[in-house]
Amino acid sequence: MISVAIIGSGNVAHHLIKVISKSKNLEITQVFARNKDRLKGLIDPQKITSNLAQIKPADVVIICVTDGSVVAVSKEIAFNNQLVVHTAGSLNLDVLDSKNRKGVFYPLQTFSKDKEVDFSKVPLCIEAENEKDLQLLEVFAHELSSSVYKIDSQQRKALHVSAVFVSNFVNHLYTIGNAICQEHQIPFEILHPLIQETAQKIMHLSPVQAQTGPAIRHDDTITQMHEAFLLEENQKNIYKLLTQSIQDHVKKL
Amino acid sequence: MISVAIIGSGNVAHHLIKVISKSKNLEITQVFARNKDRLKGLIDPQKITSNLAQIKPADVVIICVTDGSVVAVSKEIAFNNQLVVHTAGSLNLDVLDSKNRKGVFYPLQTFSKDKEVDFSKVPLCIEAENEKDLQLLEVFAHELSSSVYKIDSQQRKALHVSAVFVSNFVNHLYTIGNAICQEHQIPFEILHPLIQETAQKIMHLSPVQAQTGPAIRHDDTITQMHEAFLLEENQKNIYKLLTQSIQDHVKKL
Repeated sequence: MISVAIIGSGNVAHHLIKVISKSKNLEITQVFARNKDRLKGLIDPQKITSNLAQIKPADVVIICVTDGSVVAVSKEIAFNNQLVVHTAGSLNLDVLDSKNRKGVFYPLQTFSKDKEVDFSKVPLCIEAENEKDLQLLEVFAHELSSSVYKIDSQQRKALHVSAVFVSNFVNHLYTIGNAICQEHQIPFEILHPLIQETAQKIMHLSPVQAQTGPAIRHDDTITQMHEAFLLEENQKNIYKLLTQSIQDHVKKL
Repeated sequence: MISVAIIGSGNVAHHLIKVISKSKNLEITQVFARNKDRLKGLIDPQKITSNLAQIKPADVVIICVTDGSVVAVSKEIAFNNQLVVHTAGSLNLDVLDSKNRKGVFYPLQTFSKDKEVDFSKVPLCIEAENEKDLQLLEVFAHELSSSVYKIDSQQRKALHVSAVFVSNFVNHLYTIGNAICQEHQIPFEILHPLIQETAQKIMHLSPVQAQTGPAIRHDDTITQMHEAFLLEENQKNIYKLLTQSIQDHVKKL
């Protein structure tokens, strides 16, 4: 049995509490939440504390707070010489306070509270200062997912930037598509199959092979017409820049 | 039985030939391909002609050539007073030559030759000059897909621009994510679940609700670190512009 303490009550904490609670080989001993109500119904209220100093040692202590609070929280922890990990894609291992043994447990997925996630398929990126802790993290991670990767801090930073492009920025392009449809009384659902197919395609083809559309065809008549059609400044600039980037990328291959 | 003639041999023509051939109520009478070899194995060679003047009337004549060739091809057709439709998202109905009855049959999907598509779920956007032709197109379209929409030329233009954002541009963001991973010896597959989940999410949440990441959180420490991390100029500019656009969009809500 691996004991786990969780510090935080945001989206990642929510999903972790749910999935860890389901595992027979893991036990959540305590959770810290500044506002206990945020964890209502998720876990035995006796296990929740709003006083960080009351969090006691556990085999794995997981800090899942906003990136900007990780350093301060790791300093505030009352005990020492335990394995303490953060879950932040863009923070180095060594931002954690040195009184405890440092590690990272980065689930590479987008978590929203209102959307269930099949955690068994979430890639878990782990890192630790010493081999023994890395092994422990590996056993812990494999209890939750079949997809576990050893990723160092520099790689994790690159991975996090990539994730911003393929997820956060992609979602913003969906937002723009939705806005254009709404302006013209077109149901956004009409674009759902295209969105799903575009995502599915790169499971079988490389993204470069999968590229279609007027930019890659250098169809200047169409791209110029589209640019003229877009009146909102950000939309117009994004159209121009991404068209240019698609065409530049091919030149470099 | 609806008879169909197809003019063209590109990606859309390939997928149309395959799916129309499967329908008992539709019959492909002829296909025009400048290079007959491009349709090898797809259809009875006797039905293929490389002489456009040899294409004979059919209930529905579908022009699926590059956008820039649609006008010229519609002029070259030897017969008149038939229903002739194009498949181009960004061309008006009235670009077609007036000697035939005009229509549009726009399948809103990304087609690559090496990737099968479940055509029964492809949204088909139809338009015609007269009600009778629209009804015929509707019957024809429903033979191929359960998802048929009447979309006029102005809406179709908006839809095509939206499609460029949610598909062509999204795929380019996958390309950038892939390139960053390759530079840092990270397998791109690690991002596949995130990409799928990001696409799945907007089936349940609006894209605005689904937005996550450092831009929407106004986490300037992270966004500035990411900008500094990106050395390739297009990547850096795309990062800045999309971060700005995500933040501007929220202000307008």
